[in-house]
Amino acid sequence: MRLDHRAAGELRPVKITPGYIEYPEGSVLIEMGKTRVLCAVSVENQVPKWLVGKNQGWLTAEYAMLPRATHTRSQRETTPSARSQEIRRLIGRSLRAAVDLRLIGEHTLNVDCDVLQADGGTRTAAITGAYVAVCIALDKMIQKKEASPRVLKTAVAAVSVGIVDDELLLDLNYAEDSRAQVDFNVVMTAEGNFVEAQGTGEGATFSRAQLNRLLDLAKGGIEELLKIQASVLRH
Amino acid sequence: MRLDHRAAGELRPVKITPGYIEYPEGSVLIEMGKTRVLCAVSVENQVPKWLVGKNQGWLTAEYAMLPRATHTRSQRETTPSARSQEIRRLIGRSLRAAVDLRLIGEHTLNVDCDVLQADGGTRTAAITGAYVAVCIALDKMIQKKEASPRVLKTAVAAVSVGIVDDELLLDLNYAEDSRAQVDFNVVMTAEGNFVEAQGTGEGATFSRAQLNRLLDLAKGGIEELLKIQASVLRH
Amino acid sequence: MRLDHRAAGELRPVKITPGYIEYPEGSVLIEMGKTRVLCAVSVENQVPKWLVGKNQGWLTAEYAMLPRATHTRSQRETTPSARSQEIRRLIGRSLRAAVDLRLIGEHTLNVDCDVLQADGGTRTAAITGAYVAVCIALDKMIQKKEASPRVLKTAVAAVSVGIVDDELLLDLNYAEDSRAQVDFNVVMTAEGNFVEAQGTGEGATFSRAQLNRLLDLAKGGIEELLKIQASVLRH
Amino acid sequence: MRLDHRAAGELRPVKITPGYIEYPEGSVLIEMGKTRVLCAVSVENQVPKWLVGKNQGWLTAEYAMLPRATHTRSQRETTPSARSQEIRRLIGRSLRAAVDLRLIGEHTLNVDCDVLQADGGTRTAAITGAYVAVCIALDKMIQKKEASPRVLKTAVAAVSVGIVDDELLLDLNYAEDSRAQVDFNVVMTAEGNFVEAQGTGEGATFSRAQLNRLLDLAKGGIEELLKIQASVLRH
Amino acid sequence: MRLDHRAAGELRPVKITPGYIEYPEGSVLIEMGKTRVLCAVSVENQVPKWLVGKNQGWLTAEYAMLPRATHTRSQRETTPSARSQEIRRLIGRSLRAAVDLRLIGEHTLNVDCDVLQADGGTRTAAITGAYVAVCIALDKMIQKKEASPRVLKTAVAAVSVGIVDDELLLDLNYAEDSRAQVDFNVVMTAEGNFVEAQGTGEGATFSRAQLNRLLDLAKGGIEELLKIQASVLRH
Amino acid sequence: MRLDHRAAGELRPVKITPGYIEYPEGSVLIEMGKTRVLCAVSVENQVPKWLVGKNQGWLTAEYAMLPRATHTRSQRETTPSARSQEIRRLIGRSLRAAVDLRLIGEHTLNVDCDVLQADGGTRTAAITGAYVAVCIALDKMIQKKEASPRVLKTAVAAVSVGIVDDELLLDLNYAEDSRAQVDFNVVMTAEGNFVEAQGTGEGATFSRAQLNRLLDLAKGGIEELLKIQASVLRH
Repeated sequence: MRLDHRAAGELRPVKITPGYIEYPEGSVLIEMGKTRVLCAVSVENQVPKWLVGKNQGWLTAEYAMLPRATHTRSQRETTPSARSQEIRRLIGRSLRAAVDLRLIGEHTLNVDCDVLQADGGTRTAAITGAYVAVCIALDKMIQKKEASPRVLKTAVAAVSVGIVDDELLLDLNYAEDSRAQVDFNVVMTAEGNFVEAQGTGEGATFSRAQLNRLLDLAKGGIEELLKIQASVLRH
Repeated sequence: MRLDHRAAGELRPVKITPGYIEYPEGSVLIEMGKTRVLCAVSVENQVPKWLVGKNQGWLTAEYAMLPRATHTRSQRETTPSARSQEIRRLIGRSLRAAVDLRLIGEHTLNVDCDVLQADGGTRTAAITGAYVAVCIALDKMIQKKEASPRVLKTAVAAVSVGIVDDELLLDLNYAEDSRAQVDFNVVMTAEGNFVEAQGTGEGATFSRAQLNRLLDLAKGGIEELLKIQASVLRH
Repeated sequence: MRLDHRAAGELRPVKITPGYIEYPEGSVLIEMGKTRVLCAVSVENQVPKWLVGKNQGWLTAEYAMLPRATHTRSQRETTPSARSQEIRRLIGRSLRAAVDLRLIGEHTLNVDCDVLQADGGTRTAAITGAYVAVCIALDKMIQKKEASPRVLKTAVAAVSVGIVDDELLLDLNYAEDSRAQVDFNVVMTAEGNFVEAQGTGEGATFSRAQLNRLLDLAKGGIEELLKIQASVLRH
Repeated sequence: MRLDHRAAGELRPVKITPGYIEYPEGSVLIEMGKTRVLCAVSVENQVPKWLVGKNQGWLTAEYAMLPRATHTRSQRETTPSARSQEIRRLIGRSLRAAVDLRLIGEHTLNVDCDVLQADGGTRTAAITGAYVAVCIALDKMIQKKEASPRVLKTAVAAVSVGIVDDELLLDLNYAEDSRAQVDFNVVMTAEGNFVEAQGTGEGATFSRAQLNRLLDLAKGGIEELLKIQASVLRH
Repeated sequence: MRLDHRAAGELRPVKITPGYIEYPEGSVLIEMGKTRVLCAVSVENQVPKWLVGKNQGWLTAEYAMLPRATHTRSQRETTPSARSQEIRRLIGRSLRAAVDLRLIGEHTLNVDCDVLQADGGTRTAAITGAYVAVCIALDKMIQKKEASPRVLKTAVAAVSVGIVDDELLLDLNYAEDSRAQVDFNVVMTAEGNFVEAQGTGEGATFSRAQLNRLLDLAKGGIEELLKIQASVLRH
Repeated sequence: MRLDHRAAGELRPVKITPGYIEYPEGSVLIEMGKTRVLCAVSVENQVPKWLVGKNQGWLTAEYAMLPRATHTRSQRETTPSARSQEIRRLIGRSLRAAVDLRLIGEHTLNVDCDVLQADGGTRTAAITGAYVAVCIALDKMIQKKEASPRVLKTAVAAVSVGIVDDELLLDLNYAEDSRAQVDFNVVMTAEGNFVEAQGTGEGATFSRAQLNRLLDLAKGGIEELLKIQASVLRH
């Protein structure tokens, strides 16, 4: 039994609130347990220089934490830390797997993921939430004929899994994550394919068998998250 | 009549939610109309170098906007902009007027004001909200004997006033603020004294008579805000 | 009696030397007591991007201190400090109140205020001196038909007032300023209207009555400064 | 058949030259095809602050490319790019899996990986080469009694695999890598366990079956690299 | 005949005003023709880390230009430009040749050279002027027993020479300097030895014979400057 | 006799390996004793802004050291240090003396000099080596009709000389350089003219007679280096 009484393969309570702030073309607040990430999608009428004239769009993401999102206050980031930049690129790649960028004209989707409260799994929560915010923004673009109705290629959601005290666990909270020997972030599509599978031993290594069982655990969690996303988007 | 149907001397609806996030020693979400600022107070067990050994504490503030807090997305600040720094110093000075820093030992109160949604008056909302968050944090310090029960010298609240189309208005929203000829930020104490009175003509000037009427308007608004703060803190 | 034997409402000796350096379109050295600020106005044949094609000009200001302008040497500023940026914006706004920017074509006036020696009141001295340097530069523009003869809307001058040991004083020097409970920077036009009135309590607050008396004191000082400016410009 | 006539599961020619430069405690030049990385290990007599007094050491890595390591010249990095930082952290984690940091006292191993020529797979070549340089440096430490003879926990080597034109390939060169749909970097120990397995779809996704076959391919390549490392270290 | 009617081997009018600003331990304004440099020496009660405990002092210099010191305004330097840094190091080395740093205890002389107006030869004027400011500061240190009376090893002065339109000229002004084929900065002691001799061909080269004649020209100019320095210091 | 058994006027063993890396238009590895510098020339199809439309080219140089090129590891440079920038400008000026930039069209030669191992004289080795790399790149440009066959104006080579323990020495290694009283870097052409002659006393001064003998020593060394360059280029 885990500290918060979850089973090894159980997600924390998930809540996705669409339209949490008003100005962005799409926004959601996603909560996974105490982790809370505000995802905002801004549609810009231009593309990066290297895409100009290619008749396609782009999607890019930023990620940051408020200074007191964590147990102890951290410095406000001036230049994004290496960690933040790694996460920005992960979020961007993951969402680009869901969107057919050739069908949104020369627009850029800027996805801002700001962590209001951090209790582990912020990057995967950001991906899961941002996917919904992107869908909301794309809906508006479709209505304004800025995007094709076939612009969504698939759904994406993400979750962390890891090995803690030799137990394989789904959706690690901060207390678990900080003691994890192995940490995996997995991003999957509605079809069950991988967009990303990043496994890291922290002072430990992991066997092929463990890798396989972790991916199974992740798959189960992601399937649940995809259902929650779909249900939010239906309303 | 103003666009949002307020009278010239009427505040926007104000809502202060204490404990909005869980980790800081004090936190509130303050909403004034669409303006929403998350205020978080972190208590640190040390003081800046120049205060070490002087047996007193310090209070400092930071202020930032999320990139999509505004109608159009702005770049994420790397170094705080001149505007942000000016506001940080204003918030810090204002709150220090309320707290007897000699009665909190060698602790620092770090006040983070992060604007989730900006519709004018973010700096004054930040001051009004942060005062409440500071009180919550001081309460905990008093209970832990880290601060004296007499640590609060007074209450402070703040509001903007200005001249728009030659009309004197209280609590300008963004649409009003961006057209204002004159813009005043006023911070007052429960006793009706000024901590700050910063009036600026933007392409216009203002007479002594106008200055006097603007300060009257501000006084009325601040008295209401002080009541709302007190009511939140009673519960 | 003040340490330098001035009465409460007395300015320090003021000297404005026009043409102090040769290359700028307008330059003055202003001395107020020991405070010495070199003001240089450069006319540039272009405007910021956001003004291109709008058939009007712009005025912007920079402010900095030489490292040994003060009693103890300070680090050379790399990025302008928050204080310097706040002052830059104040100087710019104040001077823009004097100049009709629609009457100078697509030119930018760059105003550099460099403090050679600092003994309090550097920002207000900078405004008072820079106004003269701007007039000199505008004269040349008028002669070259780059500006209309009606380009000057009014004169502006500035002074500090404050409360020191419960006394209300005009034109604080450094020794007074560093002990001031309340500090006011006031910028006014020849018509007696305010461009800026920025009052700040430093560990103290001030009443409405005190605010009124401080503004009276400032008005007297600014009227004197306007006469000195006019006399320099007549020659 | 691949452009350079390799089979799908074939490594490029590998050459590891120990002692390539003279001053570092350990250095190698590793060449994998045209990719050439200079790995230098510097032993420092101190540890990062957070480890002081814990009677253990640390290992950290840096990674950079010379500006003309690539087909077209790139700007010299000022702050390390996000990509460089991500790679630095990967190299550091991978090498820390090989070294028992509790057995080197309060020393830090600084590993510099500088890419002289880049033809794909630079980060995995850096890990494979740096492992050898670390062993050389540790040997000297053991001789000087600064490290225990049991300091090496295992050997590590790394390789990239990927999917190009739907073919699964080992050890991608630049031409292959830039067209890859899926890109995997795998770091393994001599025991066949994973330290890292980072798979990324670039505009494509990958199935569980593909993931499995890619890991098989990587395993084969890494076993060869481990043999080459061992043979260099025996001499 | 040169544009300003000087002979080839003639200095511009030189004026050194000691005590130009009041707070530094030593200050002069040096004018060579239109070139004006404010030199300020600050004595600090500490030395750089690498000198602590070695019972000797240090001297370091900074150099900068005001933005409108030149014909057209230049950007305010944020980080010192490469040119400024090169000049800082030259000034520092030159002055350290004059001062016996073992005889000033653990003090640092910070020399600030700020160019108010630039018409060529600013770096050599800075050295010549700063030497006088250093002497003034050392006199105060000697009186306070912080420096030995034998602290001055020699006098130093500096001048530029160059080849313009195939003519060898002393003390180039800006118009000459910008057309110079060869540019030499020479720093010499009262004994006629070199501290620095930096000759640079700009799109041209120079023969050994030309080098010799340029050094002769420089020697003559420096001898005159040494006399002017001595005369200022006698008063 | 010097520590490495060289005579006072003897160069260290020199080796120039052309084509050391494959992608640049020209590259060499130059070794002078233990000093090793990788010189890479990249030809870019554009010129800096201020040269656009002037029908001529440009040559610019960068210089950096790998962190462990030296006996003890140094921090990786973020912004180039003052020393690096000074050297970049020296290398650029020296090579521009050899190339007729009017005969290469609107191209830029970017010369990267990266020090793999540093044992004194890295800047002069960089110039001597980079000249050869520039020749290789120009040959390709001549073949592609991008440069005129008369593009080379002369050859340039460089060497250091200095005074160590009152002895005048050619081609100082690090141990000598760090104890040198006087340090001269000399760049000359095949015709025996100077491009640069930079002499610096480090805590010492030098007489005119010493200057003359140092230049003689440098001349001898440079003549040898010019022969080695020519011989490499013939093959």
